Amino acid sequence: MRQRNKPWAKQKLDDHPQYVISSPDSQKGSWSDYFGNDHPVHIEIGTGKGRFITGMAAQNPAINYIGIELAESVIVSALDRIIEQELPNVKLMNANAEDLRDFFEKGEVDRVYLNFSDPWPKKRHAKRRLTYKTFLSIYEDILPEHGEIHFKTDNQGLFEYSLTSFSEYGMLLNYVSLDLHNSDYEGNIMTEYEEKFSNKGSRIYRCEVQYR
Amino acid sequence: MRQRNKPWAKQKLDDHPQYVISSPDSQKGSWSDYFGNDHPVHIEIGTGKGRFITGMAAQNPAINYIGIELAESVIVSALDRIIEQELPNVKLMNANAEDLRDFFEKGEVDRVYLNFSDPWPKKRHAKRRLTYKTFLSIYEDILPEHGEIHFKTDNQGLFEYSLTSFSEYGMLLNYVSLDLHNSDYEGNIMTEYEEKFSNKGSRIYRCEVQYR
Repeated sequence: MRQRNKPWAKQKLDDHPQYVISSPDSQKGSWSDYFGNDHPVHIEIGTGKGRFITGMAAQNPAINYIGIELAESVIVSALDRIIEQELPNVKLMNANAEDLRDFFEKGEVDRVYLNFSDPWPKKRHAKRRLTYKTFLSIYEDILPEHGEIHFKTDNQGLFEYSLTSFSEYGMLLNYVSLDLHNSDYEGNIMTEYEEKFSNKGSRIYRCEVQYR
Repeated sequence: MRQRNKPWAKQKLDDHPQYVISSPDSQKGSWSDYFGNDHPVHIEIGTGKGRFITGMAAQNPAINYIGIELAESVIVSALDRIIEQELPNVKLMNANAEDLRDFFEKGEVDRVYLNFSDPWPKKRHAKRRLTYKTFLSIYEDILPEHGEIHFKTDNQGLFEYSLTSFSEYGMLLNYVSLDLHNSDYEGNIMTEYEEKFSNKGSRIYRCEVQYR
């Protein structure tokens, strides 16, 4: 995603601590206190402008959502959306996926969503893909036993790679669609990117995988 | 595949015992004697008119191929092709995949090819799909440890189903292409069906899976 330089972005995030988790490491082990309930916590890694995570939050009020995004200049758009919609069950985290173990105990996250992650198409960049084995190990450490990852992308190469990476890691493939928008899958919440590229004729691939 | 009634087909198969294995159960445990060498044996289940298996045999003279097909009226076309090409390393078997354990000892088959298998799209027919768990169990019993299945199809639903079936069975996905004819995969031998449907614009899906 193209990132415009927004020097005011960091300040705006700091100004909204009710929506943007200011020091996520200090919540480790006490996320139910933070949310004030025992609802499951689902996270989206690479939440972008937040259309997916806010759509999910509106659709599922008994689930707590955290949208995680590294780029300040992008996550501020997600913040605008949350301010506007006043949703109580969705928060934002301006952080790096590599550090998730610092923020969550094992089992504190009930599901991981990966949507339209950067494909890093060059082989020498494979380690940066969010479905590379080191990331699968991180997610395993914050999910419960048999925790699930739900993944969608329009990038054929990333999807092919990810299917083999999940398999090599020993994960179970529960569901796969090779053309999501022409499938019988119901309740799909589109990301900004998904709508744009689907309208251009790209197929959307989706799968659900589970740790064994 | 549409099957014309060919009452003479059975007789023609019987008339060519040098190409058509007449009593496969009597070869069980002695396939290297049958072929007169210790080359690996690769089988294609549902060999149709034999274009794939004869193409593979011509390309790989140090591998023995067996094309297995239940429909007499179809396998006679494969026989014509073999008679014409005089290939020493490909044979035909007019048999049912359900009976493979009667024909091969564990490890006597080195690889299984499934190409454009009948999709059996109705859920109540899932058991008939050649990637259903009972068939995966049969292949496991004739392949060596870590034996491989190479599978291609243009049927999206069958491919989606098969990926989850392989995974549920505990198999390892080593390779997947969601658009074989636009990939960097080399040496693809097309089936009759593959050429026809690819020319009509269908995508070809392909994967290689392995028992763990």
